[in-house]
Amino acid sequence: MENERFSFLASDYRQGFPAHCGFEVDRVDSGVFETRLAVKEMHRQQDGFVHAGVMATMADHTAGYAAFTLVSENERILTIEFKINYFKPAVGNTLFCRSRVVHPGKKIIVSESEVFSLHQESEKLVAKAMVTLMAVML
Amino acid sequence: MENERFSFLASDYRQGFPAHCGFEVDRVDSGVFETRLAVKEMHRQQDGFVHAGVMATMADHTAGYAAFTLVSENERILTIEFKINYFKPAVGNTLFCRSRVVHPGKKIIVSESEVFSLHQESEKLVAKAMVTLMAVML
Amino acid sequence: MENERFSFLASDYRQGFPAHCGFEVDRVDSGVFETRLAVKEMHRQQDGFVHAGVMATMADHTAGYAAFTLVSENERILTIEFKINYFKPAVGNTLFCRSRVVHPGKKIIVSESEVFSLHQESEKLVAKAMVTLMAVML
Amino acid sequence: MENERFSFLASDYRQGFPAHCGFEVDRVDSGVFETRLAVKEMHRQQDGFVHAGVMATMADHTAGYAAFTLVSENERILTIEFKINYFKPAVGNTLFCRSRVVHPGKKIIVSESEVFSLHQESEKLVAKAMVTLMAVML
Repeated sequence: MENERFSFLASDYRQGFPAHCGFEVDRVDSGVFETRLAVKEMHRQQDGFVHAGVMATMADHTAGYAAFTLVSENERILTIEFKINYFKPAVGNTLFCRSRVVHPGKKIIVSESEVFSLHQESEKLVAKAMVTLMAVML
Repeated sequence: MENERFSFLASDYRQGFPAHCGFEVDRVDSGVFETRLAVKEMHRQQDGFVHAGVMATMADHTAGYAAFTLVSENERILTIEFKINYFKPAVGNTLFCRSRVVHPGKKIIVSESEVFSLHQESEKLVAKAMVTLMAVML
Repeated sequence: MENERFSFLASDYRQGFPAHCGFEVDRVDSGVFETRLAVKEMHRQQDGFVHAGVMATMADHTAGYAAFTLVSENERILTIEFKINYFKPAVGNTLFCRSRVVHPGKKIIVSESEVFSLHQESEKLVAKAMVTLMAVML
Repeated sequence: MENERFSFLASDYRQGFPAHCGFEVDRVDSGVFETRLAVKEMHRQQDGFVHAGVMATMADHTAGYAAFTLVSENERILTIEFKINYFKPAVGNTLFCRSRVVHPGKKIIVSESEVFSLHQESEKLVAKAMVTLMAVML
């Protein structure tokens, strides 16, 4: 069942470092994964903005789970590499990450993640990543 | 004084999210910054390895401080973008990150970060990043 | 006049190496640049596909001109860096490159380029690039 | 014979688009490939410097052949993606590209390419690329 698989992935997403960071799942669909973060003091850097590493972690992890929605239960997804551009400081109290698969290859899957900062009821695109993933049999 | 500046940067490095992650400074020199992480449960992902986001955060933050050693006290360093490749799972209990500036431009500075995992007394190169930074006047 | 500026850019695009490669301009708009290549023997690699370097050149050059549409006549655009992913071999006889600015910063501009291969009347996305550019005063 | 394999690769390198561009092989060794370009008018862009696409092509193609030195004769090398940073304009009449494998994985191989411009008897590092490659059986 697709829905069971998606529920499993939403729960599987929140483990280890990403759970520690506080990322929450908003939406799962085929080739799509969307997450959210309530920004706290621990996520900021010296100037009060969200640290680049928080956004990189969110972009990578969410991109990987977008890929997970397209592979069988016997496969896991590894990050080969990613690139992320930062557009403006993330000053708000909520971050959203929206990932979608742009190349659903059999072996190599490429996802994109867009990170938005919600500030005074307006969403700003603050970072964008391209993530190269590999599906490997367990 | 160069030494005072380096001491200041070593202390400045440990704030906010990087401090929360537990990164420690090992060495500061002109165009060079080296850090260390004692890996804990919170740093791992679903398979027990260090999460890619931990290494990305360490690679970005350490690369930025390598750039800080080359600019005046009136400048801050912003990450424009970075790319990181993951070579093998980080299974050990200690991570090292060694960053050096490879292009010390006036405005655009490029650093590289190599991340090593220490496991059973042997160091393995587990990830490498190229980080594009910009120096801006305060 | 915007139209004069766009006409100038369409003509300016075809110089030096890009002209030698044979890239032609299809469309210019604010933050948008689209180009085309009639693939010849010289563009291929050892396996008969279009060489990765041809697509990288097209993606970079077209991305730069998308940025040119947003700056004043006194500014030029330099490529700071780019990243390109290759999704599948380009087997067709025509390539299209569609670039658009995703971050129109004052100093740092980020464009994306999508490269499509036309084969048997069907367009396939074969590569995608993220390009970081800088506007500098002449 | 390793020497025969290296000679074959040096000859195989010069085909299609790279041959058309005029790249020549200087040195082949295990995990190492070094090439050279005599810069002509066709390689330049609007400002008289070597076009970014020429350097990207050279960096990608040379990185791929560095990987070829490490795989069997039954495997070919595909570029999955690459990232290249440009440090300064290439103003000289000769370019050198030196590539070496930094991660010799079984399936995924990562090479780095450094591009140098020779000008008035002095070599300058003008660009650096990280290239992710995949070995596939023929």
